[in-house]
Amino acid sequence: MTRPRFIVIGADAAGMSAASEARRVNPHLEIIAFDKGNFVSYSQCGMPYWLGGVVERREQLMARSVEGFARRDIHVHVRHEVVGIDTPRQTVRVRDLEGGREFDEPYDRLLIATGASPVEFPLPGRDLEGIFYLDVLEDAIRIDAYLREQQPRCAVVVGGGYVGLEMAENLTRRGLKVALVQRGDQVFHAVDLELAQVLHAELERHGVDLSLGEGILQACGGQDGRVQEVQTNLGNLDADLVILATGVRPNVDLSTAAGIPFGPTGAIAVDEQMETSVRGVFAAGDCAEHFHRVLRKPVWIPLGTTANKQGRVVGRNAAGGQAKFAGIVATAVAQVFSLGVARTGLNEWEAKAAGFEVETVLLESTDQAGYMPDAEGLTVKLVVEMRTGRLLGGQAVGKRGADKRVDVLATALYASLTVTQLEELDLAYAPPFNSVWDPVQAAATRVRRHGPAQSSS
Amino acid sequence: MTRPRFIVIGADAAGMSAASEARRVNPHLEIIAFDKGNFVSYSQCGMPYWLGGVVERREQLMARSVEGFARRDIHVHVRHEVVGIDTPRQTVRVRDLEGGREFDEPYDRLLIATGASPVEFPLPGRDLEGIFYLDVLEDAIRIDAYLREQQPRCAVVVGGGYVGLEMAENLTRRGLKVALVQRGDQVFHAVDLELAQVLHAELERHGVDLSLGEGILQACGGQDGRVQEVQTNLGNLDADLVILATGVRPNVDLSTAAGIPFGPTGAIAVDEQMETSVRGVFAAGDCAEHFHRVLRKPVWIPLGTTANKQGRVVGRNAAGGQAKFAGIVATAVAQVFSLGVARTGLNEWEAKAAGFEVETVLLESTDQAGYMPDAEGLTVKLVVEMRTGRLLGGQAVGKRGADKRVDVLATALYASLTVTQLEELDLAYAPPFNSVWDPVQAAATRVRRHGPAQSSS
Repeated sequence: MTRPRFIVIGADAAGMSAASEARRVNPHLEIIAFDKGNFVSYSQCGMPYWLGGVVERREQLMARSVEGFARRDIHVHVRHEVVGIDTPRQTVRVRDLEGGREFDEPYDRLLIATGASPVEFPLPGRDLEGIFYLDVLEDAIRIDAYLREQQPRCAVVVGGGYVGLEMAENLTRRGLKVALVQRGDQVFHAVDLELAQVLHAELERHGVDLSLGEGILQACGGQDGRVQEVQTNLGNLDADLVILATGVRPNVDLSTAAGIPFGPTGAIAVDEQMETSVRGVFAAGDCAEHFHRVLRKPVWIPLGTTANKQGRVVGRNAAGGQAKFAGIVATAVAQVFSLGVARTGLNEWEAKAAGFEVETVLLESTDQAGYMPDAEGLTVKLVVEMRTGRLLGGQAVGKRGADKRVDVLATALYASLTVTQLEELDLAYAPPFNSVWDPVQAAATRVRRHGPAQSSS
Repeated sequence: MTRPRFIVIGADAAGMSAASEARRVNPHLEIIAFDKGNFVSYSQCGMPYWLGGVVERREQLMARSVEGFARRDIHVHVRHEVVGIDTPRQTVRVRDLEGGREFDEPYDRLLIATGASPVEFPLPGRDLEGIFYLDVLEDAIRIDAYLREQQPRCAVVVGGGYVGLEMAENLTRRGLKVALVQRGDQVFHAVDLELAQVLHAELERHGVDLSLGEGILQACGGQDGRVQEVQTNLGNLDADLVILATGVRPNVDLSTAAGIPFGPTGAIAVDEQMETSVRGVFAAGDCAEHFHRVLRKPVWIPLGTTANKQGRVVGRNAAGGQAKFAGIVATAVAQVFSLGVARTGLNEWEAKAAGFEVETVLLESTDQAGYMPDAEGLTVKLVVEMRTGRLLGGQAVGKRGADKRVDVLATALYASLTVTQLEELDLAYAPPFNSVWDPVQAAATRVRRHGPAQSSS
């Protein structure tokens, strides 16, 4: 009797979580993963910290090796690109990127974990040396080599999302003068403007030349073929290194060519079990849609935590189970120099865009009891549905404890709690850790008192 | 028309939360509070940090003054002891501790917030100078004066609960050599032995002479009437300062004399609205019972956070509302030198004592991504109901982030989540803040995989 075969396209967080979980649940399954890259199972989120010298060795980012997977009877083939999926025949077409050979592999269950890639935009001068995206580990290796070999002194980072912020910090740490160029009126659109403004001040305090309302138009180089400056709508910026952190899009070409539909977000549409419209074919991670528990509809918010969770669901289902993905509440956190900034659920403009009538509160508080000498400022914002008092989202920024407050709010959102219930939470209190009412509870109290949403108790 | 009158016995956290909330809800109410002490509305939990010199000035512990309350039409009389309650006549008998005068005051609604006091035990030598409890601010002032005037060099702290641990740390900070004497086999019984052992090592690393299985038998002094040493079952300890941190009991003499019953815990029995068996008479804070959401029955766990919450409920009800106290999940946190230790719900022995069949997991993890150079060890323990997979409790200890994980677990407990649901939480991840699976989720996964409790999804 032949073993049922589970093929995984893409050895990223989603793919390898699925492979690992499938193996754990079903020792009998044959599990094969193909990845067009050179590396397997590493922390993409750790790359900026390796580039900044915080993480000393690249190998520390590696969670598990091809050999490590092989010992668990999971066969990973790197430098092997899947170039076609034949769903009626249940085969994938694989190209060995070293030999160029192509071959078909049959599957019983298939996972598409092709991830996301940077949005390429037509930038004159893009081919100059010293202009990089930071997507896969190969990119990080190239950036590191350029930093060591060319010793650039001034960098322009284009885009103020996670990657842009983390690269601005880590290039500064590595001794470069950094300009951060952002098209809109704030960095980190995941939070509302009031919180982003705290980040703006922090960036400038650490010497980052932040420019809002600025877009890059062209890159210019010298005779050596290396970038020297960038032109923007506002002027010219010296740049012997450029990081384009302008966002990503889901990789759906392969799935679309195979007739597997993407949803309204542009990512692959999946059901609760992470199955696509083709039976036995799953999608997970940055190429798939993510069900949003607050909006009650699919969104596309590519993050490693979600990829891991969706991967595990696929792994169990590929192994014959009936697992369901519970959905996300769109939680995120980033370090920006000495500040942590975090958010969960819907921010104010997202909530309004979704048609909610909201009450919001912005509370300036402290992470410890106010009388403790090391207490640091902590700003908390809550977004609450006016009619019901239900929490829709929360944000926090501060030197310490923003992540803690947002994790409490993320747990509260998972359980659909109201602000009144937030006030009732029995959170840990001692002067070095909190006020007697945690800032999220103090914020909840303000909403309850001032908003029309009255408590039931 | 006379104003309805709300009398509060005890101007502590519960009493003054009630008074403040009642005023907010009902501007018409007459509100009067009596307290036999000299101070109103201060942070008891902050006292050890003032004694340690962390908090510079005593005034920083004061939340609001008698004058501040008066401006809000709340009349606080300190140095006034309520010595009797006549429930049929709806009056309290008040003694002015300065003049000695006694008088009756009628009430429409009454709150008993008499708090808790140290358990006095018959200790030979108790009357020597230099032996203190740390209960009210007056105690802290006496200890501070003794520290400044007598310059004691070696202290014995009896009891390893919150107060004992915080005093051991803060007296060490103030330059004293500290011996911590604990009857049982561990400090901080709120957590299980595995976590307490981490605290034992930390205490010793900071020079605290920890002695387990040791009980104090007698205190001995010199001709100056000051304590010099204590005798224990294990020998003699030099001591020119002794802190007795051997626990507290609820102050129920006044209520019992008035025929207001206490419950099985020894604290005043209350219903969901914090009303005693006598209509219109409420009790809250350290003298009252506290409904435990996991055990589904009243317990007595005196803590400032609970006192504040119960006080607010009483305030709204005294003002004519119908508020209910949602109950506690027994969350607590303490700082022990460089470690935070926190817990929520039931620990292993509490769960077993309550008749639960449990699965537990102890996970050694890190507070940040493991490859970050500043990542610190974090130990997490979960206690889970075997049959259902429902979380019953959690504990954590580490240099950073124990409070965060326990606050997530406290929120999960409030919402009665299972370990499978814990795994589904969308918690904030970036390498400086977490691993891609938070330690509480990694622990939940272990329980799910190894325990008989299988997930529904």
